[in-house]
Amino acid sequence: MNKFLKFCLITTVLGTILSPEIWAQHRVTETSYDAYIDTITAEESFFTISNLWVLVSATLVFIMHLGFATLETGLTRAKNTVNILYKNVFVISSGIVLFALFGFRTMYPGVEFNGFMKMGFWIDVNPADYLDIMSAKYANYTWWTDFIFQAMFAATAATIVSGAVAERVKLGSFMIFTLLLVGFAYPVAGSWEWGSGWLDRNGFHDFAGSSVVHAFGGFAALACVLVLGPRRGKYDGGKPILGHSMPLATVGVFLLWFGWFGFNGGSVLSAHPEMIGLVFVNTAIAGAGGCLTSMIVTRFTVKVPEISMALNGILAGLVGITAGADSMMPSSALAVGAISGIIVVFAILFFDKLKIDDPVGAISVHGVCGTWGTIAVGIFGEAPLLWQAIGTLSYSLFAFTFAFLVFLGLKVLVGVRVPALDEDEGLDISEHKQEAYNHS
Amino acid sequence: MNKFLKFCLITTVLGTILSPEIWAQHRVTETSYDAYIDTITAEESFFTISNLWVLVSATLVFIMHLGFATLETGLTRAKNTVNILYKNVFVISSGIVLFALFGFRTMYPGVEFNGFMKMGFWIDVNPADYLDIMSAKYANYTWWTDFIFQAMFAATAATIVSGAVAERVKLGSFMIFTLLLVGFAYPVAGSWEWGSGWLDRNGFHDFAGSSVVHAFGGFAALACVLVLGPRRGKYDGGKPILGHSMPLATVGVFLLWFGWFGFNGGSVLSAHPEMIGLVFVNTAIAGAGGCLTSMIVTRFTVKVPEISMALNGILAGLVGITAGADSMMPSSALAVGAISGIIVVFAILFFDKLKIDDPVGAISVHGVCGTWGTIAVGIFGEAPLLWQAIGTLSYSLFAFTFAFLVFLGLKVLVGVRVPALDEDEGLDISEHKQEAYNHS
Amino acid sequence: MNKFLKFCLITTVLGTILSPEIWAQHRVTETSYDAYIDTITAEESFFTISNLWVLVSATLVFIMHLGFATLETGLTRAKNTVNILYKNVFVISSGIVLFALFGFRTMYPGVEFNGFMKMGFWIDVNPADYLDIMSAKYANYTWWTDFIFQAMFAATAATIVSGAVAERVKLGSFMIFTLLLVGFAYPVAGSWEWGSGWLDRNGFHDFAGSSVVHAFGGFAALACVLVLGPRRGKYDGGKPILGHSMPLATVGVFLLWFGWFGFNGGSVLSAHPEMIGLVFVNTAIAGAGGCLTSMIVTRFTVKVPEISMALNGILAGLVGITAGADSMMPSSALAVGAISGIIVVFAILFFDKLKIDDPVGAISVHGVCGTWGTIAVGIFGEAPLLWQAIGTLSYSLFAFTFAFLVFLGLKVLVGVRVPALDEDEGLDISEHKQEAYNHS
Repeated sequence: MNKFLKFCLITTVLGTILSPEIWAQHRVTETSYDAYIDTITAEESFFTISNLWVLVSATLVFIMHLGFATLETGLTRAKNTVNILYKNVFVISSGIVLFALFGFRTMYPGVEFNGFMKMGFWIDVNPADYLDIMSAKYANYTWWTDFIFQAMFAATAATIVSGAVAERVKLGSFMIFTLLLVGFAYPVAGSWEWGSGWLDRNGFHDFAGSSVVHAFGGFAALACVLVLGPRRGKYDGGKPILGHSMPLATVGVFLLWFGWFGFNGGSVLSAHPEMIGLVFVNTAIAGAGGCLTSMIVTRFTVKVPEISMALNGILAGLVGITAGADSMMPSSALAVGAISGIIVVFAILFFDKLKIDDPVGAISVHGVCGTWGTIAVGIFGEAPLLWQAIGTLSYSLFAFTFAFLVFLGLKVLVGVRVPALDEDEGLDISEHKQEAYNHS
Repeated sequence: MNKFLKFCLITTVLGTILSPEIWAQHRVTETSYDAYIDTITAEESFFTISNLWVLVSATLVFIMHLGFATLETGLTRAKNTVNILYKNVFVISSGIVLFALFGFRTMYPGVEFNGFMKMGFWIDVNPADYLDIMSAKYANYTWWTDFIFQAMFAATAATIVSGAVAERVKLGSFMIFTLLLVGFAYPVAGSWEWGSGWLDRNGFHDFAGSSVVHAFGGFAALACVLVLGPRRGKYDGGKPILGHSMPLATVGVFLLWFGWFGFNGGSVLSAHPEMIGLVFVNTAIAGAGGCLTSMIVTRFTVKVPEISMALNGILAGLVGITAGADSMMPSSALAVGAISGIIVVFAILFFDKLKIDDPVGAISVHGVCGTWGTIAVGIFGEAPLLWQAIGTLSYSLFAFTFAFLVFLGLKVLVGVRVPALDEDEGLDISEHKQEAYNHS
Repeated sequence: MNKFLKFCLITTVLGTILSPEIWAQHRVTETSYDAYIDTITAEESFFTISNLWVLVSATLVFIMHLGFATLETGLTRAKNTVNILYKNVFVISSGIVLFALFGFRTMYPGVEFNGFMKMGFWIDVNPADYLDIMSAKYANYTWWTDFIFQAMFAATAATIVSGAVAERVKLGSFMIFTLLLVGFAYPVAGSWEWGSGWLDRNGFHDFAGSSVVHAFGGFAALACVLVLGPRRGKYDGGKPILGHSMPLATVGVFLLWFGWFGFNGGSVLSAHPEMIGLVFVNTAIAGAGGCLTSMIVTRFTVKVPEISMALNGILAGLVGITAGADSMMPSSALAVGAISGIIVVFAILFFDKLKIDDPVGAISVHGVCGTWGTIAVGIFGEAPLLWQAIGTLSYSLFAFTFAFLVFLGLKVLVGVRVPALDEDEGLDISEHKQEAYNHS
């Protein structure tokens, strides 16, 4: 971690702590509480249920970050485990704080939005101001609920990149990259669709983020991997590089699937019974379909029932259905998931042939299947196919370009890759002076 | 995986993908959505809450499949870990798809059911058709919610078998067996009780499946183990066969207990405050009681505080209370769970003495305690004791017979057991050409 | 496990099982159920939602016990893993049963409470008796819901101690200590604040238990560690003692954070939309803030990006915000969490310098940050600062004194520490005749 990063973090935290006017008058009183219970109407009751569901969904999306951490850890070597865990812990923690500092109000810029970009700032506002805009007509949840659900999404993009650059990236550089990606690029791009920006206005439909989150993260990952290069020993002969714990990887995928019911289900943004029921079914069926087809295709290509391909098949199906889980019947969801499971196997083999080294298959799972899933809404749903293509391309291009420039800048300024000796020794020892496992 | 299996999977998936009429007119519109919010009544509000709870429960039951996977992995040897994870990933994925294809509408065959068997098919129906039958009077959740909650249950029976046959079963044969058990036998038998079949009509009460799910799975497991025989080295001298990771096993049991709050709690099929509260308390207390008595009994029999017995005591208590968690007070739930914890220790020692090799104790936990739990509703609840006995016997016998015949058929046709050399080497290398752990 | 313990457990369980009058008339009927659905009002609908949320929260708090188990296991040596898992399984199981037997009605003694202590007993009551007191005016959940949510909290105090005394405590002595702490001391002290006792009457505010649960557990842990002494080899030269699995420790902290949304969110005791939204945001932000500042401070003090410090920073932030998550805006929550993350690093270094050996940092995380979090409500919230100090001091002193006397008594009577040879060999072999990992 270099000095610039230290400076940023310290000023941010101290600035917040030391500005007493920020929390003056911000003490919470409970006077409105009793009144609420006494006068609740049926319509407010729907608001209360929906608000609860979006919060429960936020909790489910939160645990996906553990899923990403264990998946990435399991599919890489034991000697880089502490480093990966540290990165993932940093990503979720800084993601939440950054999304509170600028992200949320940049991504949801309000009515006077120009459609492309508008900077926001800290989430604290006078309750009276937001009670108006969070009424049952506009939204079925409170301001705080809106923030926390979206904050849990925000760090995902950086987590996706984390898997692709694992085992050779410099910790400090990745941390700075995370701050810029989560704090700036993701909310700006996200506002195009979910903040009522130009893509939303043109009929582009991305229900829970096949493009906004997954393709965005996947193509940012591609850019970083191109700047970074493959791991030592990956393509220059020698033994294949294997993941160190299949149980950890499997735990990761199950937790991701588990959390995806909140990722997609919560994106209904209400407890509408028909809609969340359908979204659950589609999410389950697409993941299952992706698993089964990837198992079959792996049989014919790799000739061996690989557990990692089965796991990536599940994730591929889930990424694929994310854009249209609200827009199609389960038969279509099965088709979308099943096709994702086929795509992902060939995509992983393709990038590997190009010597683009992605230890966890993040580019294929999130980038390629995110693109497919977005396009699929134009085929199986009612969104205009052309705008689905334009939309997903916009996200991929923006993410790729942003990540490429930032990562290249970091490469020039401070370096993005650990020294060869450190890479061989493992980042746990070289960066953290610690091993992940001690069985003595 | 043999050719027959490949053929089945491919035709199933391709058939679904390539029949465009299945999803024609099946695009989802959101017109009904706004109307819903504007006109919601208090009664519809109860429908909305209940629907949400059953969906959250489905999510909790889903994560039980990770619990089963880690428990089974932890209690077996490291050299079979990839194989076990692969099996479990396949079971949940194929279970969801099969339950959509035939299971759901076979298990819930509707009003003109003969009481014994009626084949169903794919879940997609015209929304207008099911909106009538899923009204607040008939059910407190939507068609989709009903499906996904039950789908999460469906794969459980096969997962139970998976644990008992671990470390020596042929992957392809187990996969075919799974398809038949989950796709056919489970929904047919399930309809007898939960589909308003002959057992339900005679007053048999199995709230969340001590018999329908657990005894069914446990006695299917017994049949498979009898056909398969014990692991090499288990009863022919040599060192005892030990599980390879107690942390993984413990993670599994905690996740199963966690998910059981959805398994039992969701089986209330509404958010009725009194009832789900009681079911939660009974589920917690029975699991705790089973743990404590199994700890004590283990002290007196095995003479050592074995962690695996304590874990199985928890599961025994949970399986035991599953049939009657809605039908008794917590004092009775404590008794049911405590007795389960005693039974399970003796059952495990008993089957071991008979040289019936069940690596995870699935027959004792799910089979024996499932039977006890069902009977217990006749003692502590209000169900007729005679029909409780007839019911649980019917499930056990049907599951045992079905599994025995299918597994025997598979043994004759393609073999169910890996070659001795492969078993010694471990299934990870022989079937998957991969090791679960690489610490080099 | 000694004879006294055996006697207690057996009489408790058998006494419950063999007293038929306990469950006579206690069979549950479903007659009230249909009536409920037909006549539900908007206000009852709020009751139903709130009841559901508190139950879901109980489920989330339950999984924290897996978080504690994996965190403690990961931060200690492999040779004591089975022992730690066994302890944790016992703590949650005995905790639930004891809380049903005496704890719940001791902690919530009802209206005629003297403010200091009143013994309660078994939770089963005539439904008619509690339907009156659990109306929508008094509480937004049923009697059963109230019990199970609080029962999940009860075992936490003992679990906190478990981490601090790990790797050298005698199993049987720890189990007896747990029974007394969870069964007696915790509910008595808890009643002072949450049972409308003397602290509650004086304006002391501890929303979800920074003092009632965490400082209580942390200072009980300090007392036990002082009686017990450090692990062999910790301060008498030789290599540093390292945790054996950072992935397990990280899984633990993520699960704890995940469950904390229920720990704090459920403590709203209703589904009030504004309040639970705010509590979620504060919980997330304080944990994130604690992580970031502990990362920075660790940089300057330990000079190495230690994963265990980052993890403890998260927990410190969460413990810190627990007392006031309902009482301040997110900017204040960020400050409280960020300060917790700074405090915890120095506290861990401080206790280590004093040679107070706490393998997981429980005293610093729960004791010190629990105290800080309680005080912080007097600064950032509206509670009187003096009573916040008096309250937290009361909990710490009571817990310390109780634990010290009981543990000292156990030391004199039966011993609290395993023999030196057993400690060197590891408790798994010496107490359980089993190893946690078998990779042969």
